[in-house]
Amino acid sequence: MTRVLVHGGEVVSSTGTTPTDVLVEDERIVALLAPGTGDLFAVDERIDAAGCYVLPGGVDVHTHMEMPFGGTQASDTFETGTRAAAFGGTTTIVDFAVQRTGEDVEEALARWHAKAEGNCAVDYGFHMILGGVDEASLKAMDALVAHEGISSFKLFMAYPGVFYSDDGQILRAMQRATGNGATIMMHAENGTAIDVLVQQALAAGHTDPVWHGLTRPAALEGEAVNRAIALAEVAGGTPLYVVHVSASQALERIAAARDEGRNVFAETCPQYLYLTLEDHLGAPGFEGAKYACSTPLRSKHEPHARDLWRGLRTDDLAVVSTDHCPFCFNDQKTLGLGDFSKIPNGLGLVEHRMDLVHQGVVDGNLSLQRWVETCATTPARMFGMYPKKGVVAPGSDADLVVYDPRATTTVSARTHHMNLDHSAFEGAVLQGQVRTVLSRGRTIVDRGTYLGAKGHGRYVRRGLSQYLR
Amino acid sequence: MTRVLVHGGEVVSSTGTTPTDVLVEDERIVALLAPGTGDLFAVDERIDAAGCYVLPGGVDVHTHMEMPFGGTQASDTFETGTRAAAFGGTTTIVDFAVQRTGEDVEEALARWHAKAEGNCAVDYGFHMILGGVDEASLKAMDALVAHEGISSFKLFMAYPGVFYSDDGQILRAMQRATGNGATIMMHAENGTAIDVLVQQALAAGHTDPVWHGLTRPAALEGEAVNRAIALAEVAGGTPLYVVHVSASQALERIAAARDEGRNVFAETCPQYLYLTLEDHLGAPGFEGAKYACSTPLRSKHEPHARDLWRGLRTDDLAVVSTDHCPFCFNDQKTLGLGDFSKIPNGLGLVEHRMDLVHQGVVDGNLSLQRWVETCATTPARMFGMYPKKGVVAPGSDADLVVYDPRATTTVSARTHHMNLDHSAFEGAVLQGQVRTVLSRGRTIVDRGTYLGAKGHGRYVRRGLSQYLR
Amino acid sequence: MTRVLVHGGEVVSSTGTTPTDVLVEDERIVALLAPGTGDLFAVDERIDAAGCYVLPGGVDVHTHMEMPFGGTQASDTFETGTRAAAFGGTTTIVDFAVQRTGEDVEEALARWHAKAEGNCAVDYGFHMILGGVDEASLKAMDALVAHEGISSFKLFMAYPGVFYSDDGQILRAMQRATGNGATIMMHAENGTAIDVLVQQALAAGHTDPVWHGLTRPAALEGEAVNRAIALAEVAGGTPLYVVHVSASQALERIAAARDEGRNVFAETCPQYLYLTLEDHLGAPGFEGAKYACSTPLRSKHEPHARDLWRGLRTDDLAVVSTDHCPFCFNDQKTLGLGDFSKIPNGLGLVEHRMDLVHQGVVDGNLSLQRWVETCATTPARMFGMYPKKGVVAPGSDADLVVYDPRATTTVSARTHHMNLDHSAFEGAVLQGQVRTVLSRGRTIVDRGTYLGAKGHGRYVRRGLSQYLR
Amino acid sequence: MTRVLVHGGEVVSSTGTTPTDVLVEDERIVALLAPGTGDLFAVDERIDAAGCYVLPGGVDVHTHMEMPFGGTQASDTFETGTRAAAFGGTTTIVDFAVQRTGEDVEEALARWHAKAEGNCAVDYGFHMILGGVDEASLKAMDALVAHEGISSFKLFMAYPGVFYSDDGQILRAMQRATGNGATIMMHAENGTAIDVLVQQALAAGHTDPVWHGLTRPAALEGEAVNRAIALAEVAGGTPLYVVHVSASQALERIAAARDEGRNVFAETCPQYLYLTLEDHLGAPGFEGAKYACSTPLRSKHEPHARDLWRGLRTDDLAVVSTDHCPFCFNDQKTLGLGDFSKIPNGLGLVEHRMDLVHQGVVDGNLSLQRWVETCATTPARMFGMYPKKGVVAPGSDADLVVYDPRATTTVSARTHHMNLDHSAFEGAVLQGQVRTVLSRGRTIVDRGTYLGAKGHGRYVRRGLSQYLR
Ligand SMILES: [Zn+2]
Ligand SMILES: [Zn+2]
Ligand SMILES: [Zn+2]
Ligand SMILES: [Zn+2]
Ligand SMILES: [Zn+2]
Ligand SMILES: [Zn+2]
Ligand SMILES: [Zn+2]
Ligand SMILES: [Zn+2]
Repeated sequence: MTRVLVHGGEVVSSTGTTPTDVLVEDERIVALLAPGTGDLFAVDERIDAAGCYVLPGGVDVHTHMEMPFGGTQASDTFETGTRAAAFGGTTTIVDFAVQRTGEDVEEALARWHAKAEGNCAVDYGFHMILGGVDEASLKAMDALVAHEGISSFKLFMAYPGVFYSDDGQILRAMQRATGNGATIMMHAENGTAIDVLVQQALAAGHTDPVWHGLTRPAALEGEAVNRAIALAEVAGGTPLYVVHVSASQALERIAAARDEGRNVFAETCPQYLYLTLEDHLGAPGFEGAKYACSTPLRSKHEPHARDLWRGLRTDDLAVVSTDHCPFCFNDQKTLGLGDFSKIPNGLGLVEHRMDLVHQGVVDGNLSLQRWVETCATTPARMFGMYPKKGVVAPGSDADLVVYDPRATTTVSARTHHMNLDHSAFEGAVLQGQVRTVLSRGRTIVDRGTYLGAKGHGRYVRRGLSQYLR
Repeated sequence: MTRVLVHGGEVVSSTGTTPTDVLVEDERIVALLAPGTGDLFAVDERIDAAGCYVLPGGVDVHTHMEMPFGGTQASDTFETGTRAAAFGGTTTIVDFAVQRTGEDVEEALARWHAKAEGNCAVDYGFHMILGGVDEASLKAMDALVAHEGISSFKLFMAYPGVFYSDDGQILRAMQRATGNGATIMMHAENGTAIDVLVQQALAAGHTDPVWHGLTRPAALEGEAVNRAIALAEVAGGTPLYVVHVSASQALERIAAARDEGRNVFAETCPQYLYLTLEDHLGAPGFEGAKYACSTPLRSKHEPHARDLWRGLRTDDLAVVSTDHCPFCFNDQKTLGLGDFSKIPNGLGLVEHRMDLVHQGVVDGNLSLQRWVETCATTPARMFGMYPKKGVVAPGSDADLVVYDPRATTTVSARTHHMNLDHSAFEGAVLQGQVRTVLSRGRTIVDRGTYLGAKGHGRYVRRGLSQYLR
Repeated sequence: MTRVLVHGGEVVSSTGTTPTDVLVEDERIVALLAPGTGDLFAVDERIDAAGCYVLPGGVDVHTHMEMPFGGTQASDTFETGTRAAAFGGTTTIVDFAVQRTGEDVEEALARWHAKAEGNCAVDYGFHMILGGVDEASLKAMDALVAHEGISSFKLFMAYPGVFYSDDGQILRAMQRATGNGATIMMHAENGTAIDVLVQQALAAGHTDPVWHGLTRPAALEGEAVNRAIALAEVAGGTPLYVVHVSASQALERIAAARDEGRNVFAETCPQYLYLTLEDHLGAPGFEGAKYACSTPLRSKHEPHARDLWRGLRTDDLAVVSTDHCPFCFNDQKTLGLGDFSKIPNGLGLVEHRMDLVHQGVVDGNLSLQRWVETCATTPARMFGMYPKKGVVAPGSDADLVVYDPRATTTVSARTHHMNLDHSAFEGAVLQGQVRTVLSRGRTIVDRGTYLGAKGHGRYVRRGLSQYLR
Repeated sequence: MTRVLVHGGEVVSSTGTTPTDVLVEDERIVALLAPGTGDLFAVDERIDAAGCYVLPGGVDVHTHMEMPFGGTQASDTFETGTRAAAFGGTTTIVDFAVQRTGEDVEEALARWHAKAEGNCAVDYGFHMILGGVDEASLKAMDALVAHEGISSFKLFMAYPGVFYSDDGQILRAMQRATGNGATIMMHAENGTAIDVLVQQALAAGHTDPVWHGLTRPAALEGEAVNRAIALAEVAGGTPLYVVHVSASQALERIAAARDEGRNVFAETCPQYLYLTLEDHLGAPGFEGAKYACSTPLRSKHEPHARDLWRGLRTDDLAVVSTDHCPFCFNDQKTLGLGDFSKIPNGLGLVEHRMDLVHQGVVDGNLSLQRWVETCATTPARMFGMYPKKGVVAPGSDADLVVYDPRATTTVSARTHHMNLDHSAFEGAVLQGQVRTVLSRGRTIVDRGTYLGAKGHGRYVRRGLSQYLR
């Protein structure tokens, strides 16, 4: 048995901060101690957290490692991506296994397990994307919930012909989820209408990256969110989790449903809080391709970012995840040269989520407690991993971050650990720094040095949502 | 030249009532006269309207004469249906010509002209149903607006495989309408989701008529309305007219859009104001089939009817039409014995609209002015027929109704003039009675006697909406 | 008997326009005639309206002629003010008689009758301001409704110590109005809170006119509107008419109440549609004093004006009146030099309302029909004067305006007819021009020449609101 | 030093539950331990919590011990009331010290300290009621925040002539709070209007207790809440806490403000969740007097209770407190015989809050986490007592409740410990039972036996709200 004491820091929880020493035995936290109280424990290692926050390890519930997309695949493998996550203070990811139309769900899941197993630096779980809702995949939902530790299924209202489910399929999957307790995650954009706009734009000769955003209007995100909420109601009150909310219109519908007490939840991602259609997706030349993701960046002339920060404060947005899905500029993003619709969609952010949201705390946009809540505690509860993950408590996995709020972090592709040849936040200097990261009791990052190992990360079997109303 | 003077009555307009004599020359109104002022005109006929209201002839903008549906067709021909309309004080109908996928729009229109021409008792226009939105039909829209007097196109979010348009088709049609100024009429129900519910109900052995309503939940009408509004916004602010609104959820979305100043309009129909899912669609045995229409009758345990009356008062519902689409109980409705989904959808109401809404005036649900406005003036303005229709004004067509508010009307299949073997309001005694009806200067109904003629009714070429904001 | 025929024009009503000749006998309209139809009438005078609109005379339901305020009185007498109104196409005003605490209501009314009688160029009515709600004044309300042709009573939530009624007094007056059918008009600003802000601003040395606006925040108008609506509900559904709405927050509350079907109505005034806190009230030096009115002009950095135009389109704002209450800059406005709270409140606009709102038609902010509706028809209906006023119909008073939409009007204190040494719209060139004005059959203005006479205007006894839901 | 180990239980926090042993040293918690981990500590006492929840002691932030009201005073002294609180698992109360018009605030506070000091069974704090807002009391606010551990000030929009502040006074107090960081607590009912209704009811001979409710309509609670929110906005964003929310209309305004991200918070009380105007306040004879409180119980024909439970789920209602203010039926409530307005207002509930809300958990109205959050954690954070109170954490006061969810509690005046001759929940059998209660490390209640002592309770100096956005 190994004992580690993280001492002298301020433990930050979703309700406040307290000076607390954290005692770890092997993989678990075994005690929270008032400073000094732990002296009678024999300890193998002492980690000095003086002047630092001690956080539950970050939980990023939206990543796509080595995700196949448009003839290429996301540039981070489970190995590189989870190592980058570790550097950024994220000790659990929930990635998306993908079933496509006609595929066997459990086989698809097995394929994803094969990719991840033995490769991850931190613990990982899977959501299941249902690209083809039919009798077989519906039946598989029950099995995954009951036996595989998968309690959340993602559907797409976008991407007709690829991941798209029609409203009848969505309704059926939601009904099934109402029955087995799972959560439906929704990519909420009206893809059928968007495809018309895309074809019209291309036909008119509009091929630049900015048209990726212009053809995905905010109104069509709001519409889809409203539709998903209505379908969940008709399906008997299915728990609904809207991914990557970027638009005020979407948030408005979510807030209205939540005011009615419905089990409707949502996440946003750092890019929507900081980056814009004009300044980033609309950057000169083909630069904007770096910022092509869906939902897209929104116009700075509209109050989307301001509203999203507010939504995080009011809990109408419960989670910050990254939708980490990196594609290199060279060879990958450039597939869309001359046709914005061919740009692989996605940004690489898994490494910087904790810092980017902490910057929001520094800027006065969010409380310290909400930082921890939106980045660790709520995602763990939302997806059935609490109290194993998301909280600093006796019995919990010893996933801990010692965070120095006075140091700074400079973001750059030259120094980051993601397998990505550029950064969406290149040059940004963020207040706060991940100093030490423990994953299940093992120090995997310390002052910029990687001490972890491929394969340390284990699969997390998840239960049903613990965030229902 | 023939001169008729309608004298001694109170002319009711959308703003109030005034004792006014109305002078008709041939087909047109040529003068409104303070009582007594008309004495110097030599008059061929004098119609005594003492104690009566004098109204602009009713305008019913939603009828389906001899409409093919599910292997049968609506039981009223243009001849019988427009004669019944005349009896009920409606002197203009706008019916729906139907283009189906792959059909030529102008040929389809010609077919409908052929059905109506020479057969109508009152004037008639056409909306065009686009059952198949494609390059050809989109192009035809422009032609119909420019040359055919057709300025409104109906799309269906319901009935997949029949009239259904997907959101991409809707968006394209709306864009075209934004360009040519036309109004998009929308049957707003999420048909894709409804079809799942229908199949599930049938699979579970639920075959009774009430399941027609139970499988078309109000939430899916609200959803579709919201989606139509969003698509109209994305299409550049297309004028949108939602047909047969039956649900509070739909009205709520319409009112919200209207508060924002959008060109969103809606109608409801008498059945939704008076009849309910439980008492009518859920009547014992197969009786309920008489009340099967889509959108369906709504639950009496929810405030739909109360909200719809309120919507009429607030103008969030601008029009009362009938969606007249009668099917006899015997041989037609009975097609759905053992399978509610096979019941031909529709009620026969063209004859009783004016009386049924006047009863709302008597009951205190609506003002006298709003009666005239919702049943004549606004529908005429909404669909580009003003001031030819919908108003008692010099130069307007002499379509006039002398209405006795003290007499009563008893509704019965034994006495009505629709070609229909039952009545949705059988036995109802309504306060108010149509006494005399003029269509373009000719008295076509007087005290229950038909004085009109097949073929008197003429096609009305319509312009763009005159009700835009 | 004198017969006048206004021929060749387009009569504009609240529902549309029609080429119509208007036949006047003495004081009343006796016929509306299709062009040419009137030839058989012997006519004394023919007014050529070719190329012009023919409108019902404007109805301005919010004026304060010779109103005592802060030790001075409004600079227009009933004589000068109504003559200016006539020049601007307004043929009816409803002014405010004022009862102050402790005064006998009927004596106060008599005083106002004495001021107006024999002096007015156009017809006039009175609302009654209840400055002191007590047993006696409540009782007088019934008498005024029943016998005096006064069916509307104005209360103030502003001006503590002057016109202010507390919420108990408001509730009691509303209850009385619920009983006798009258409408309560409300100056909705939280005067108690405003007075604190005013005292604080003065104490801090802020004495400039702009502080008049800064101490009357929009939130306190919205608050008061909400409160008035709640009190009207508690009083049993009293018809409520909110005067001079200037703030988005107020409009939002009004629209919400109207969506619920309540008898809540509102007006705005031209100054709020065009002028702003920064550019006008905040003009350099003491210039801003010209623009001091309550409610105040609002910030151009907020969407108030845009929202008010939208409210006029949606009928959430039903009426445009002026709140005409002019004070000369010299000797009157200057009372507030060094203390903004001493600036007499009010602008002189009675002459330019029709032109200013017509400019909105030209600018695409409002339809032609809504111009006539908001400026003539609805105010007449709202305050019980229809169809005597507000409509071109047989039997109505022959109050007519021949309006040339192609000519222009230049606003200037040098040329206007109000007794006012400046103009809030000095130099504005507005599209449209009042060409000829008839009041009860008499031409009182023609091409800029005054043909009327002091004392031509008669008192209008009003009935209850004809605009209730 | 004394060590106590509470072992074998499930610690419930606002985010979830974990099997955790809690180690107490003297007055504080010093360690949370995974089961078994504490074995190496020498412990003086072991409390077996097997099968039980271990909660942070309840925090009731709204009590009125020995409160003078209408010529009598609340029947519980600080001694009896805090003892009863202890029996019910509440280990901290925040009571209201009262300053009346003209009184010195600090002297008033001293008077309340004198009442409480040496008498309390559990810890206590004070809010300050400002009955007279003037220069002196405003200045005193700063002093209380800075030096007296009082960071919340209560104002009344009700009770004119007693505690009432007008809107100007409210604004000034809010401005001061914005400056010093304090929270304004608001009794939000429009007392000026209510007094009119009360006088009218009495004048009409309506004297029964039910008229207490009928004269305080829900609309006037909603109105006052809206007004308080507006004033807080004008005052620069003052933290606002609305007490004893009972009406849907109030909740609706609070939820809207919260959606906008404002620092608006609210509590409700158990009586509004369970009792109704008709069944309780309207009980036969004078029984209803037992249920007279302000805000009053609401009609069961309206969805208030359902909405309040929903508000607790959505955090639009953040806290459940009791507004404990007991008056005996005999001699006290009977002061209102023949005049409902003389019934002393208040219910005695301090003993049953934890059980009544736990019953909501059992009934499926609230999660276990929200129970702890609304009854302990959030009130502590809201009023600046965290982490000393409201959480089971190292360093926190050892205020702990061992709660048996399988046992039951029967409520009765015969057995309760409040000094009250009746109970609002007489005969109710609630699922769940307080088994053992520790206050600052001392067991003060165990299995129904009181082991505490008068004077054990200490004054809690509070900081600013820790619940701001
Ligand atoms: Zn997605
Ligand atoms: Zn909310
Ligand atoms: Zn994704
Ligand atoms: Zn339809
Ligand atoms: Zn509205
Ligand atoms: Zn139809
Ligand atoms: Zn005024
Ligand atoms: Zn209280």
